Amino acid sequence: MTDFEKTRTMFDIPEGVVYLNGNSLGPMPKAAPDAMARFLHDEWRTELIKGWNTKGWWMAANALGDRVGKLVGAEPGTTIVSDSLSIKVFQALAAAMAMVPDRRVILSDDGNFPTDLYMAEGLMKLKDDGYELRIPNPEDVLDAITEDVAVVMVTEVDYRSGRRHDMAAIIEKAHQLGAVVIWDLAHSAGAIPVELGRLDVDFAVGCTYKYINGGPGAPAFIYVAPRLLDTVEPYLSGWWGHASPFEFDTSYHPVPNQITRMRIGTQSIAAFNLLSTALDVWDHVDMADLDRRTKELAELFIAQVESRCPGVSLASPRDADQRGAHVAFQFEHGYACMQALISQGVIGDFRAPDIMRFGITPLFINEQDILKAVSVLEDILARETWKEDRFQTRSKVT
Amino acid sequence: MTDFEKTRTMFDIPEGVVYLNGNSLGPMPKAAPDAMARFLHDEWRTELIKGWNTKGWWMAANALGDRVGKLVGAEPGTTIVSDSLSIKVFQALAAAMAMVPDRRVILSDDGNFPTDLYMAEGLMKLKDDGYELRIPNPEDVLDAITEDVAVVMVTEVDYRSGRRHDMAAIIEKAHQLGAVVIWDLAHSAGAIPVELGRLDVDFAVGCTYKYINGGPGAPAFIYVAPRLLDTVEPYLSGWWGHASPFEFDTSYHPVPNQITRMRIGTQSIAAFNLLSTALDVWDHVDMADLDRRTKELAELFIAQVESRCPGVSLASPRDADQRGAHVAFQFEHGYACMQALISQGVIGDFRAPDIMRFGITPLFINEQDILKAVSVLEDILARETWKEDRFQTRSKVT
Repeated sequence: MTDFEKTRTMFDIPEGVVYLNGNSLGPMPKAAPDAMARFLHDEWRTELIKGWNTKGWWMAANALGDRVGKLVGAEPGTTIVSDSLSIKVFQALAAAMAMVPDRRVILSDDGNFPTDLYMAEGLMKLKDDGYELRIPNPEDVLDAITEDVAVVMVTEVDYRSGRRHDMAAIIEKAHQLGAVVIWDLAHSAGAIPVELGRLDVDFAVGCTYKYINGGPGAPAFIYVAPRLLDTVEPYLSGWWGHASPFEFDTSYHPVPNQITRMRIGTQSIAAFNLLSTALDVWDHVDMADLDRRTKELAELFIAQVESRCPGVSLASPRDADQRGAHVAFQFEHGYACMQALISQGVIGDFRAPDIMRFGITPLFINEQDILKAVSVLEDILARETWKEDRFQTRSKVT
Repeated sequence: MTDFEKTRTMFDIPEGVVYLNGNSLGPMPKAAPDAMARFLHDEWRTELIKGWNTKGWWMAANALGDRVGKLVGAEPGTTIVSDSLSIKVFQALAAAMAMVPDRRVILSDDGNFPTDLYMAEGLMKLKDDGYELRIPNPEDVLDAITEDVAVVMVTEVDYRSGRRHDMAAIIEKAHQLGAVVIWDLAHSAGAIPVELGRLDVDFAVGCTYKYINGGPGAPAFIYVAPRLLDTVEPYLSGWWGHASPFEFDTSYHPVPNQITRMRIGTQSIAAFNLLSTALDVWDHVDMADLDRRTKELAELFIAQVESRCPGVSLASPRDADQRGAHVAFQFEHGYACMQALISQGVIGDFRAPDIMRFGITPLFINEQDILKAVSVLEDILARETWKEDRFQTRSKVT
């Protein structure tokens, strides 16, 4: 069984801070500075160009991909880490569209994180071939899967409310009707159990700087189903995905039947080093334990806020099975309130227009943290200085 | 005047090593470990999510872009760093193609670094609209610019031979005939003086892990001419380029008239930190001084090799003005010879089939290094054990 008091000691969180924003940027593992110092001295400084071979830099995208894949139910050889999530969305979507060449509808939802929609827009403009992006309410996605849909591209856990899509149901219906599905796991990976292999997911993408704690701007990941690896078209066809990258052919031939073909160009090895250190913590974690613990803490948080914080109302699904690992509350003065919380060391975040988000991350959050956060929130609310605060600060939302 | 003995002390190069591979991966600045330790402790650990605002992470791609831009004659506000070079090639090419919608020819050359050709291939396949990629010999590019060419996409300095294209001539002819030009400065930035602004360059891309010394996999950069900034189409339209990224619109609106629109998704701030430290060295360097010094050292190297190393023949242009900052030699047993050099601390690299490359990087290389490298090479050649070595090692070219 996972010992969360042990994982808690593996992070360096400033004294007095209750960090409820691991859903946005995970905190630093204590091992990171030494691991990075070793990378800089023993690898870059000492090995120089040889590091690509002697220190495993060249295949690190794959090795780390396997470790991230393990957290989302992917078998080895199906996942790589690289690039930004926006790029990985584009790459998955371009490939998926080509798999259903006679249809012209991409189905997402208006609760998806905007960059996914933006990347789809750009890709559609680039192809200029009659594509349509449909974005119903998240609740209507399942019904909106019709026979003209080529690709369903949705984020499993809503970045604002924490609402979860029903992965199994969407996949089943989409596959039945001949559509390909792309899952954005930005708020799932390291947050909740995901079973990419068992659910026969086509494509998944996600990031590693949130729950996985890989550091600001840590690389994204992409998963491709084993059955697609030999035919998936890597339109972002860079030399890192070439079958013989060091023969310097003038024409592109993707690595046959390997996730390696979804690699594009040269990746930051320093960023990989931080991610590797963060993944060491996950070696101690069982996802079922994590899920159980997240729910316990979230239930405690919700119950406490609802009983002690009038005017603050739950904006996440009440049923824990319908939520990811963050909890959102709606509050008219949410922006100013979040600023007040942050100034007192309780760090969550705000999403326009009135959502306060709190990440429930058992790797480093326990009951005492939850109770402290609610106490601070309760005190702030008791002061009732909202009208002055909010107009002064609202324009600074970034 | 630049003091190169001073810049030399700013790098941490292992004792006894002559590092002639700064054209492939620059060495570590001495300041990197402390700067990174400060980033980890004072920024990620201490500021956590707030670092995006309090530590300038959000606009670092632009701030670093301006500093890189300064090295290639770009004015502030025209350059960002981000992503890999392959992605930046794709982004520039997609935008350039759209600017000449009635033409279907992309002109490059068969000496271009393959990933540029591969990314063009992928983009053409994605657009599926009759595009053709022409790749004549580098020497024939100027003549190959004809009225049907939409985009000329070439690398200024050949990654193997070091041969330089005539930027001014290519731009002049291309613009005269209505084509857009993209320059890949992978082997130019930090190597030779480049004048993006003065030459009215349309697009330029490059990397920062070679001569700029930003570390393995350091971010790429993209430059867009000021006159194009308001109309350039960011097909890789991620939220980092949105006019109001924190309003979470469901549709994409690029930042008007700013290079920021070429930003895509979240970037590694650790990688930015290393690049920032590397750029501190460049504050001490004048590009004209650097160019003069590179030529002095390269001339010495060529003269010494030619007089002392029989069978090794210059594969770079003899005229220093026609070369970048690396020197290539052709040698039948080049692979085995390079392995022998490396084992004795003289680090260059090998490019198939028979090219030995040596980066001439005055920031940390001086006459003594050059003379030592040639002595070691001379000794190796005198031993003449090539026939045994080369068959044992040839299959390991990576």
